[in-house]
Amino acid sequence: MTIPQRVRLVEVGPRDGLQNEAVAAPVAVRVRLIEMLAEAGLQNIEAGSFVPEKLIPQMAQTGAVLAALKPHVRARISVLAPNSRGFTDAVAAGAKEIAILTAASESFSQRNMNCGIAESLERARALASAARISDIRLRGYISCVLGCPFEGHVEAERVAEIAVELHRLGCDEISLGDTIGVGTPLAARGLVERVAKDVPLPRLAGHFHDTYGQALANVFACLETGLAVFDCSVAGLGGCPFAPGATGNVSTEDVVYMLNGCGVETGVDLDRLLDAGDFICKFLGQPPRGRVALARAAREGALRACVPGQR
Amino acid sequence: MTIPQRVRLVEVGPRDGLQNEAVAAPVAVRVRLIEMLAEAGLQNIEAGSFVPEKLIPQMAQTGAVLAALKPHVRARISVLAPNSRGFTDAVAAGAKEIAILTAASESFSQRNMNCGIAESLERARALASAARISDIRLRGYISCVLGCPFEGHVEAERVAEIAVELHRLGCDEISLGDTIGVGTPLAARGLVERVAKDVPLPRLAGHFHDTYGQALANVFACLETGLAVFDCSVAGLGGCPFAPGATGNVSTEDVVYMLNGCGVETGVDLDRLLDAGDFICKFLGQPPRGRVALARAAREGALRACVPGQR
Repeated sequence: MTIPQRVRLVEVGPRDGLQNEAVAAPVAVRVRLIEMLAEAGLQNIEAGSFVPEKLIPQMAQTGAVLAALKPHVRARISVLAPNSRGFTDAVAAGAKEIAILTAASESFSQRNMNCGIAESLERARALASAARISDIRLRGYISCVLGCPFEGHVEAERVAEIAVELHRLGCDEISLGDTIGVGTPLAARGLVERVAKDVPLPRLAGHFHDTYGQALANVFACLETGLAVFDCSVAGLGGCPFAPGATGNVSTEDVVYMLNGCGVETGVDLDRLLDAGDFICKFLGQPPRGRVALARAAREGALRACVPGQR
Repeated sequence: MTIPQRVRLVEVGPRDGLQNEAVAAPVAVRVRLIEMLAEAGLQNIEAGSFVPEKLIPQMAQTGAVLAALKPHVRARISVLAPNSRGFTDAVAAGAKEIAILTAASESFSQRNMNCGIAESLERARALASAARISDIRLRGYISCVLGCPFEGHVEAERVAEIAVELHRLGCDEISLGDTIGVGTPLAARGLVERVAKDVPLPRLAGHFHDTYGQALANVFACLETGLAVFDCSVAGLGGCPFAPGATGNVSTEDVVYMLNGCGVETGVDLDRLLDAGDFICKFLGQPPRGRVALARAAREGALRACVPGQR
């Protein structure tokens, strides 16, 4: 099995990551984080979401974040918009890519989006028409593709049906989200293979949470199917709303380390990426997160311990 | 690519794990941990090592640990013995499997074992003769198979040469150790494929540290070659002597979760295994370690938060 020579990483830390952190980061911190991520070489960065502030205070003022970004960085930004109001605000803020949400589980859709899957697809259809008019790139997330906190098992067939709908209605990219991180490599790969029968593989992305430690193995298993777009989060920011305290998204640093080792190009400078992770962890008042970051900190600690006067 | 239907896990937490922890566990704690691991279904448990107490105080009184185990648990035990003195003590303590050490890097061998690779193989040869006489199963560890903290890159050819030597001199199993956790999946798989050209695959085991978060992906990639024996450590106990504070061995719980998800039998009961991890983490005064353990704790915390009076 050969794996792709090049992978595109979609950095979701400033959105899917920060929205699940207890501390809300102010605009200046979010702007600095996004610019550091761009400087590290990330070409796709999800910068925030246009949702009511009272629902997700961590994502307040996403418009101000976009306005403060340098234009060449703003060109790499995607934002989440759950409905037409958010969509309009996102377009007004200058977003060139907008992400929309649906789910592969009816119960999850009801609880997370306050509407059923069919209605979320109807909303998506309306936004897709608006996107075409405004020349906006559209990204569709499907949540719970490998399991649901309420329904348990989720059928790959069902995920494929929804992916086909999103593709037909005009999504440029469809991200298959293991929202609660319960997937394991053969299931993840099997799902991608199944969906790729009905939607072209280059239109698909893998989005794995590391709740049960499986995310990197899932990325590798999917890489072996030829999947070449993965969502990840600097410093593994984020968590699981259904298990507060659990691990978040797969850490971008750990993904880049793996891809570097496998000879896969990402265009990302690992050291600068680690600096970005360090920056946001310090703001959050937390130790480095992600294994590579922890190893770098430990190594530097060991080096400092060897230099007299620096311990 | 099909993967094995059944995998044998070698639990190294009580040895490779605990020897790298700051707090030394007394005999009673080590005995209870080992018995809990056996009750969880682990058939191979590395219980300790026969090394001078002043070098590794955490492994003191390994003989007393063995003596205190129930006989059916003692039958599943392996111990590490770096030289003939340790070997004699291990046999006297009733060990039926003994592990010996060598390395794929000359500098690491010198620093870790105070002798070169050639000399470590000579020692191994002498111990192998003694093992045959005493009907002891012999396990050979090769350290630094995917990288060395002093020499950097390690050639798979060199690892294969050493594995062949260990096989010839009578090792029943040869564990390929990524001691510093720098390996990535294609390299890990390529190494196993190379070594398996010269040593039968069923004689090989994979031993991955999670320093850079790659361990589980490496296990999965090697599983795809047919490798069916993996070393792992409950609660991811352990660390990296060259980067204090870094992550330790791959967590047994995370490996079992992955293998369960892939339909691979291990004979291990994940809940009881998590209880064993919980027990040792509480003794060490640390939060749960390993992603699955963290997710379980987070989920239980979330459940408690929903039950009035239990918060």
